[in-house]
Amino acid sequence: MNMRNARNVEVCFTPSLLEGYTGLDSTVVVIDIFRATSSICTAFSNGVKSLLPVATTEEAMSYKELGFLVAGERDGLKLDFADFGNSPYNFARENIEGRSVVYTTTNGTSTIHQASRYHKTIIGSFLNAGAVVDYLAGQDRNALLLCAGWKGRFNLEDTLCAGYIAKRLLGTGGFHTNCDSAHAAIDIWNFAEKNPRAYIEKAAHRKRLREKGLDDCIDFCLTIDYTSVVPVLVGNELVKLDKKT
Amino acid sequence: MNMRNARNVEVCFTPSLLEGYTGLDSTVVVIDIFRATSSICTAFSNGVKSLLPVATTEEAMSYKELGFLVAGERDGLKLDFADFGNSPYNFARENIEGRSVVYTTTNGTSTIHQASRYHKTIIGSFLNAGAVVDYLAGQDRNALLLCAGWKGRFNLEDTLCAGYIAKRLLGTGGFHTNCDSAHAAIDIWNFAEKNPRAYIEKAAHRKRLREKGLDDCIDFCLTIDYTSVVPVLVGNELVKLDKKT
Repeated sequence: MNMRNARNVEVCFTPSLLEGYTGLDSTVVVIDIFRATSSICTAFSNGVKSLLPVATTEEAMSYKELGFLVAGERDGLKLDFADFGNSPYNFARENIEGRSVVYTTTNGTSTIHQASRYHKTIIGSFLNAGAVVDYLAGQDRNALLLCAGWKGRFNLEDTLCAGYIAKRLLGTGGFHTNCDSAHAAIDIWNFAEKNPRAYIEKAAHRKRLREKGLDDCIDFCLTIDYTSVVPVLVGNELVKLDKKT
Repeated sequence: MNMRNARNVEVCFTPSLLEGYTGLDSTVVVIDIFRATSSICTAFSNGVKSLLPVATTEEAMSYKELGFLVAGERDGLKLDFADFGNSPYNFARENIEGRSVVYTTTNGTSTIHQASRYHKTIIGSFLNAGAVVDYLAGQDRNALLLCAGWKGRFNLEDTLCAGYIAKRLLGTGGFHTNCDSAHAAIDIWNFAEKNPRAYIEKAAHRKRLREKGLDDCIDFCLTIDYTSVVPVLVGNELVKLDKKT
């Protein structure tokens, strides 16, 4: 095993388990595919200047009162004071290009805050999986794929995406894993690979979105390599990764 | 869906996630197959009268000083003051028949304590999987399969066993699941089913046991339906389930 191959990739199923992962010098990839991190990737693909993730609705409301554009949801539904909700379709170019947007969601934004104490926090989804893999393969740090889950619990869709990214990372030859969660996530991806759309039908959050009529973006969120953007947390803001960050 | 079919089976990957599972009227099955719950099932199969699980080595030592027979390990290795360690082979009939044994392990015994606030706590492993399924199918409660994991983290081997038990429970027609962890565990079992022994080779704890020369019991711990005993927690003691408990 050469030094580059010695880099480890781990998967953490939910922020509630983050205490068990001690490598604060790792790069963390936050994954919340239905819908926060898919929406964030879409926003940067459509030219947003920055996103300011805030954990609470109170903070989001304060920013709204200061004149900021605000996107936000709780339990899938748009917050009444927000300019728009959490569908990737809300982050259309005409809504957000060149602007800074304050952003709060049920699980995704608080997960970003919990990840922020690690070396670097980037945003992952199926949409930018290849770009995330290229970025991680091009640096010399261990990778922690952090699933947002659902209110502290494991969820199937984020694990599926983490498994996909972990498998591609191992495929670069630059990573190994000694993490049982990573093995499990990869095998869940292997099990689902032929038809991820059908596989995800049994996910609890898939049902939640359907019941609320918010599932029009499922196919889009499962699109692999739609964009090459890698959103990265710098200070309190998500910006598009460039060579200087 | 009839009333009996309305019973839910859930899987919790590690006690660190137990807060998210609120149905205190459920029956909990504690699973720690390498090696605590396999050893407990073996002990009852070999006629132990009762096991007293204690969470700390200090408690175990106090009992030893009172003259109790003590079995215990930390990180796989036998505690120096204990009469024997945590291999199922230690719980041979000649060692334990008709006796009460104090018992402490790295993850399993503390998991039993955490499960004790639920309606009923029973012990599961591959060794008694069929008996556990029959017991759960014969009562009218939801089932929570609680993996001990490893020091607060997910592990592959307990998840594999939970997936196997969950699949058999669904197969009885008396249960459904709306739990993403249960779906994932079942699919990990489906993925591993043709050769669980080969599958488990990648598990981190499999490697730990090998490095310490403690892996002679792996094949035995993967034996399905070796015994029909169902150990149950009554007060502070594990005893063999009978119709009165």
